[in-house]
Amino acid sequence: MIYPDNRWKHAWDGIILFAVTFAAIEVPLRLVFGYTAKGWISVADSLLAAIFLVDVVLQFYTVQSEQGRLIVDRSEVRRRYMKSWFVPDFLAALPFDLIFLLAGPLGLPVLLAQRISRLVRMVRVLRLFHLAGILRTIQRQSTLHPGLLRMSILTYWILMAAHWVSCGWLAIVGSTGDPLLDYLNALYWCLTTIATVGYGDITPDRTNAVQLIYTMAVMVLGVGVYGYLIGNIATMIANLDVARAHHQEKMEQVTAFMRYRNIPPRLQSRIRNYYNYLWESRRGYDELSVITDLPDSLKADVVIHLNMEILEKVPIFRGSSNEFIRELVVELRPVVYTPGDYVFRRGELGERMYFVSKGRVEILTADDIEIKATLGEGDFFGEMALLFHQPRTASARAAEYCDLYYLDRSTFDRVLRRYPEFKKKVVAFAEQRSSRPHDVVAEGNASDV
Amino acid sequence: MIYPDNRWKHAWDGIILFAVTFAAIEVPLRLVFGYTAKGWISVADSLLAAIFLVDVVLQFYTVQSEQGRLIVDRSEVRRRYMKSWFVPDFLAALPFDLIFLLAGPLGLPVLLAQRISRLVRMVRVLRLFHLAGILRTIQRQSTLHPGLLRMSILTYWILMAAHWVSCGWLAIVGSTGDPLLDYLNALYWCLTTIATVGYGDITPDRTNAVQLIYTMAVMVLGVGVYGYLIGNIATMIANLDVARAHHQEKMEQVTAFMRYRNIPPRLQSRIRNYYNYLWESRRGYDELSVITDLPDSLKADVVIHLNMEILEKVPIFRGSSNEFIRELVVELRPVVYTPGDYVFRRGELGERMYFVSKGRVEILTADDIEIKATLGEGDFFGEMALLFHQPRTASARAAEYCDLYYLDRSTFDRVLRRYPEFKKKVVAFAEQRSSRPHDVVAEGNASDV
Amino acid sequence: MIYPDNRWKHAWDGIILFAVTFAAIEVPLRLVFGYTAKGWISVADSLLAAIFLVDVVLQFYTVQSEQGRLIVDRSEVRRRYMKSWFVPDFLAALPFDLIFLLAGPLGLPVLLAQRISRLVRMVRVLRLFHLAGILRTIQRQSTLHPGLLRMSILTYWILMAAHWVSCGWLAIVGSTGDPLLDYLNALYWCLTTIATVGYGDITPDRTNAVQLIYTMAVMVLGVGVYGYLIGNIATMIANLDVARAHHQEKMEQVTAFMRYRNIPPRLQSRIRNYYNYLWESRRGYDELSVITDLPDSLKADVVIHLNMEILEKVPIFRGSSNEFIRELVVELRPVVYTPGDYVFRRGELGERMYFVSKGRVEILTADDIEIKATLGEGDFFGEMALLFHQPRTASARAAEYCDLYYLDRSTFDRVLRRYPEFKKKVVAFAEQRSSRPHDVVAEGNASDV
Amino acid sequence: MIYPDNRWKHAWDGIILFAVTFAAIEVPLRLVFGYTAKGWISVADSLLAAIFLVDVVLQFYTVQSEQGRLIVDRSEVRRRYMKSWFVPDFLAALPFDLIFLLAGPLGLPVLLAQRISRLVRMVRVLRLFHLAGILRTIQRQSTLHPGLLRMSILTYWILMAAHWVSCGWLAIVGSTGDPLLDYLNALYWCLTTIATVGYGDITPDRTNAVQLIYTMAVMVLGVGVYGYLIGNIATMIANLDVARAHHQEKMEQVTAFMRYRNIPPRLQSRIRNYYNYLWESRRGYDELSVITDLPDSLKADVVIHLNMEILEKVPIFRGSSNEFIRELVVELRPVVYTPGDYVFRRGELGERMYFVSKGRVEILTADDIEIKATLGEGDFFGEMALLFHQPRTASARAAEYCDLYYLDRSTFDRVLRRYPEFKKKVVAFAEQRSSRPHDVVAEGNASDV
Repeated sequence: MIYPDNRWKHAWDGIILFAVTFAAIEVPLRLVFGYTAKGWISVADSLLAAIFLVDVVLQFYTVQSEQGRLIVDRSEVRRRYMKSWFVPDFLAALPFDLIFLLAGPLGLPVLLAQRISRLVRMVRVLRLFHLAGILRTIQRQSTLHPGLLRMSILTYWILMAAHWVSCGWLAIVGSTGDPLLDYLNALYWCLTTIATVGYGDITPDRTNAVQLIYTMAVMVLGVGVYGYLIGNIATMIANLDVARAHHQEKMEQVTAFMRYRNIPPRLQSRIRNYYNYLWESRRGYDELSVITDLPDSLKADVVIHLNMEILEKVPIFRGSSNEFIRELVVELRPVVYTPGDYVFRRGELGERMYFVSKGRVEILTADDIEIKATLGEGDFFGEMALLFHQPRTASARAAEYCDLYYLDRSTFDRVLRRYPEFKKKVVAFAEQRSSRPHDVVAEGNASDV
Repeated sequence: MIYPDNRWKHAWDGIILFAVTFAAIEVPLRLVFGYTAKGWISVADSLLAAIFLVDVVLQFYTVQSEQGRLIVDRSEVRRRYMKSWFVPDFLAALPFDLIFLLAGPLGLPVLLAQRISRLVRMVRVLRLFHLAGILRTIQRQSTLHPGLLRMSILTYWILMAAHWVSCGWLAIVGSTGDPLLDYLNALYWCLTTIATVGYGDITPDRTNAVQLIYTMAVMVLGVGVYGYLIGNIATMIANLDVARAHHQEKMEQVTAFMRYRNIPPRLQSRIRNYYNYLWESRRGYDELSVITDLPDSLKADVVIHLNMEILEKVPIFRGSSNEFIRELVVELRPVVYTPGDYVFRRGELGERMYFVSKGRVEILTADDIEIKATLGEGDFFGEMALLFHQPRTASARAAEYCDLYYLDRSTFDRVLRRYPEFKKKVVAFAEQRSSRPHDVVAEGNASDV
Repeated sequence: MIYPDNRWKHAWDGIILFAVTFAAIEVPLRLVFGYTAKGWISVADSLLAAIFLVDVVLQFYTVQSEQGRLIVDRSEVRRRYMKSWFVPDFLAALPFDLIFLLAGPLGLPVLLAQRISRLVRMVRVLRLFHLAGILRTIQRQSTLHPGLLRMSILTYWILMAAHWVSCGWLAIVGSTGDPLLDYLNALYWCLTTIATVGYGDITPDRTNAVQLIYTMAVMVLGVGVYGYLIGNIATMIANLDVARAHHQEKMEQVTAFMRYRNIPPRLQSRIRNYYNYLWESRRGYDELSVITDLPDSLKADVVIHLNMEILEKVPIFRGSSNEFIRELVVELRPVVYTPGDYVFRRGELGERMYFVSKGRVEILTADDIEIKATLGEGDFFGEMALLFHQPRTASARAAEYCDLYYLDRSTFDRVLRRYPEFKKKVVAFAEQRSSRPHDVVAEGNASDV
Repeated sequence: MIYPDNRWKHAWDGIILFAVTFAAIEVPLRLVFGYTAKGWISVADSLLAAIFLVDVVLQFYTVQSEQGRLIVDRSEVRRRYMKSWFVPDFLAALPFDLIFLLAGPLGLPVLLAQRISRLVRMVRVLRLFHLAGILRTIQRQSTLHPGLLRMSILTYWILMAAHWVSCGWLAIVGSTGDPLLDYLNALYWCLTTIATVGYGDITPDRTNAVQLIYTMAVMVLGVGVYGYLIGNIATMIANLDVARAHHQEKMEQVTAFMRYRNIPPRLQSRIRNYYNYLWESRRGYDELSVITDLPDSLKADVVIHLNMEILEKVPIFRGSSNEFIRELVVELRPVVYTPGDYVFRRGELGERMYFVSKGRVEILTADDIEIKATLGEGDFFGEMALLFHQPRTASARAAEYCDLYYLDRSTFDRVLRRYPEFKKKVVAFAEQRSSRPHDVVAEGNASDV
């Protein structure tokens, strides 16, 4: 059986995409210009039939996915395919040119056979619907930017529609001799109309009801397509950078507020810098909101990836079970400090332990003047607050923009309650600690300090 | 009296819709081309008058609905109809052709009578306003997709407007002889203008003030209609699949976040799969938010429909009153687990009981290696947590994507408090249970395990 | 002094609006066609100057409002007016025609004076800016639908702009003799261009740089105006009925959910009916959200208006102070019951007292079969729950769609705490009550029962 | 090193912006019209080369900012520049005219050298990409309205694109002799097409495939650009005054609610006045929401700026540490009272202390009739409620629209707990106070009263 994530399947999907596109372009052209398939077109035609035939066979061996469950059972796969796309797929795979070759021997008038063949070949276009499914799957699994992908697929369909509308126009108006110029003129008319430019150098014959009605239909549908396109382009481009749009909107709101309330220029610039920092360092994303929607296990994996080795360094967590660490990591909350902000001051009662994710934090001496230590990425401080309800023994100040994570005591306690075996270890650690002079900086990190 | 949900009433509304549409199309045409009603048109005319007349009579017997209350009283119905639509409806029901036939005997000049008759027939178009009410009712009661319906109704009105604008143009410009081509040309001009294509092959006579003003009015109104249309098409298509749009937006946000934070490909694919599962299994709907808005009784009915037989199977709920089950069912909360996630682990303190709505959950033996049991749709586990505050006796792990519902102890207790007579039964059950070795899987479900 | 809510001031604002509009239309026309003011135009001109002059005088006596405070002081009003609009207003009030009459005696060449006069009259158009302020005030104070008003004002400005662009076009292209047709053609060209129809029957002379540049400027600005218009029309029409849009969106979401989860048709219809009831009875408005934003005193006034006489009927509230009632009324919460829903059942512990705002509630006898009483608009029940923690003595069931308000005990207690003098009365009432058999329906309402 | 906030750097960026714009306009023009650089154009050309060369040198000394951190290290700056924009910047700085002068001596055919030179000069346009970076920085740091700025930048790019498309059209169609008219015609064609006006007086030669394809490409891209523009103009203009839009939406919702519920006109007008006051006094901004997003230190600075001297006046806060005041100030909550509202009444239990930010508050005597004192901007009252749980000794009533801030006891207590050394002072103050008769108005403000 062929699984959805098979590499060769992806390649084959690419070939099918190309083949169907070719058929969808060539079939109406042959219908309009009425040429006979010769040379490379004839070869391409046979190749197409072969590709479609192989695909029909492959479908019987392709695992389908439904509601997150894979349908691996062969008879089930076959049953489903027979009931859905088998008939149109099989019809599209018939080699119509060969059938037309048989017309002579079978006594059918060749010209009629030719015309019928051209019409019957329309079934190949049915594969476009089948293709829509493939494109949807690609859209779902691709790691490309979804907005860009959607834009490409929409463009694909619109160009295809423009091609068909142009062929329809040619069929009604009739050709003048030069097929290429005729086609270009028809496409030119089609785009001029759909884009509502309407130069008026090509217009329907006003005594020809068919041409008038066709033009009106194209205009009415065109308005719809055009409205859809305009609406989509706006959202697409907006979504190409949702984050930037949010950031700009926020900035505009803040700027308006600051100008209205006459915030002094220096404070204005600090606030602007803060938002620019948020933007540059994390594209303004509120990680919390993205992560919150995930189920607990995925949430833990993402947060663990983001804060990999931090927790494992902390002495009180060393040697604790993986599950315990996972539960704690999910509870970490990000917080930003701007340069010069105090994270906490000596003498305050501490409730939180901090982990430095980015930036430098200075630990100050008793008089808040000298810098006792500078902590950087991966360091942590204030962990005694999780164990004891006592005042901070030193102040901590952000030396530059700092991304910290914190864990507060109540959360720590809540998680601890579910891991009673670990609680004893913590108490032991705390007792050992409290017999020595408390340091705001953990010994385990002394080398960093 | 005829009630709003009467089948024949729906059919009659369909006939009225058809009749009014015919009148709205034919009345301006006859006004512009000035033809005399002969043959089938004359028959249709009389039929129309008859239908409208019958409708006036029927209105006196039709129950109206107002603010959720039905107005069944006949005199009240009559009074309301007389005050609202009776006069225009009655005028629209007059057989104008017959009146015109009377012109000769009455000594009126026939030509004048004809012209007056054509003008007076305009009152029939007043029924369009009445029709708007019917369309609104259809929109409200229909089970069709509301977006599609709104799109159809909007298209109906725009085509109608285009028809009238075209007839107006014909009246101003005058006809050339071939009514069909004339009409097609007028419609073509109208659509070319409204769609802002503006080929320029049909333009107003620039020395004719009336034509210039008419064209300008059509353009100005056209821009409005066009803007309305463009705006609507965008929202309509968006609403055709609100859920999909939300899903895609979410996916784009998540993808951007993952690319920016360099989430490893395997984790990326797990997250994408999770969202695809959510989409495929429930169109990304947050059931909670839809259900929350309903009043309690409807909420209970919907949740009961969704989880029909699950609760009744649970031994501790067996034999409890219907009201009790209803209150509990409203408190069930959905939760999703991805393949391999632990629902809970042996030794944890349990607070929740789980019901399997979809997927398979494995109950593991003490060493978490062997699978003791596999639970599927309609099974439940961990129900002892509602009664006792004790550690789980086994681990439970999701074997595939699982939709579970859970009920936590505090909710259970809260509901129990309102049903004191049931509390005794539960305590008795708990005592009986606790005298036997605890199983995480209820005995009542042993056959499923 | 003239206050902003003076009736005559509104009338005068209307006259000014008319006068400025006339000036804004006539000034460029005279500039382009170069006609001499004669007959009624001359009279209108003088009248205009007089009106503007009177307005300048009146401005010195008009109270201005700033940030919710009225500026009544006459010298302050004068100072402000002198610094803001006095100069342009005064210039606009000059009688230019009279000045031009003085040209002869003063020895100025008449033709030059005429031309200068026509140019100088442009200052009258400055009043349009002043007018914008008046329109904004009207918009703020009007009780008309804000969306409709905004739409009208926008249309006013766009038509004005179209008029000016047309006059500009005439000035560049030159007139052909018939002023009316010339003007209509220019307006026609302007609208054709701005609406992007672009028939192409009137185009700039391609060897005339000025015409080309003017056309390009109009197109570029036109695109902007057009985009603004399209965007606005969409929001405007949407806002014409924000409530309906919300209702429809909700309905679409609910319908999609119900179809996807296969809710049975009867339940679907009940849910749809519920939302239709919400819509018909209160336009789907969430009163709570509208009221919540108001400051407490306004909130109380609105709620009191909505529930006027209900609270005063309740025996336990009778004779309590107005302030106490006001505070209670603010805490009333609306709730809806669908036909057949139980509000509460006999034997349940009650926590809430209910007031019937609309619909009928049935009080059932002990066996829940017979109807003991039917309560309607303005009735209340279950008030003993505010005083005693005891089971309900009867069941209450909604007979049709019911809008109830409820007051729960904790809120009642909280409010009571702030009115200690009232607490005694309540306790006395409760003691008196508890010495008699409890009724779920208050005696005070016995006549309704 | 040159820092980003260097004044001369801003000036130089302006020069670069001008130079690049000139190059981007002149390069394609020379390519199309094939003129030789003479006179001032030649001088400008050399000047441009010089400017670009100087800029290359300056880049080596310009500090870059990355994620809020400045890159000051010279070798790091050089390394980064060499890897990013050095090569295109250097190529753009080459003096192509001089190279062309060397063609003769070097034996190259002069005409060919000229043509090559014109083509090679295209590299200068690469600086546009570099420019995009500068424009982004300007956008980030500017204090101008972000929406206006974005609109200007977008217009800049679109005009540039129109210029290039026009030059492309000229290159394909060929010129007729008069360069200026030719260029104007090409630009006219371009704008006519992109704005979808499509007069049709200039259309591609329908037998010329290149012209047809070029036109179609312009139309297709034009639709995209146009859609983008329309979408942007709507949001831009909306964002020019986000606050007003919110206010209007709110007003529309409230108006609809009031009309539907038949609120009496006087109450309607009071509600409308309240919203107008909110709008006029603070542009409807919810300060809380803007401030909430800031980190604590910035939040405190903004609030302190807004309420500068208020807190310091209060006796119980006098002499407290700066940090303590900062923490309290962050907890101040704004509240609005409409004229005549009671802030509190005599006898109520007080929980909040109030600060008057705007408007007048009247303190009433025991019988609520006489006004004992009137408090204005910067005054405070009810501060004893933070210390004692006792009834208010007088009533306070808003005389006009009042913006107050309040601080409630629980918050005060919470902050106090973190500043134990200050707690003693407060207790002492309270004891001293309670030994005297309580005044609702602080003595410290007696002069204001």
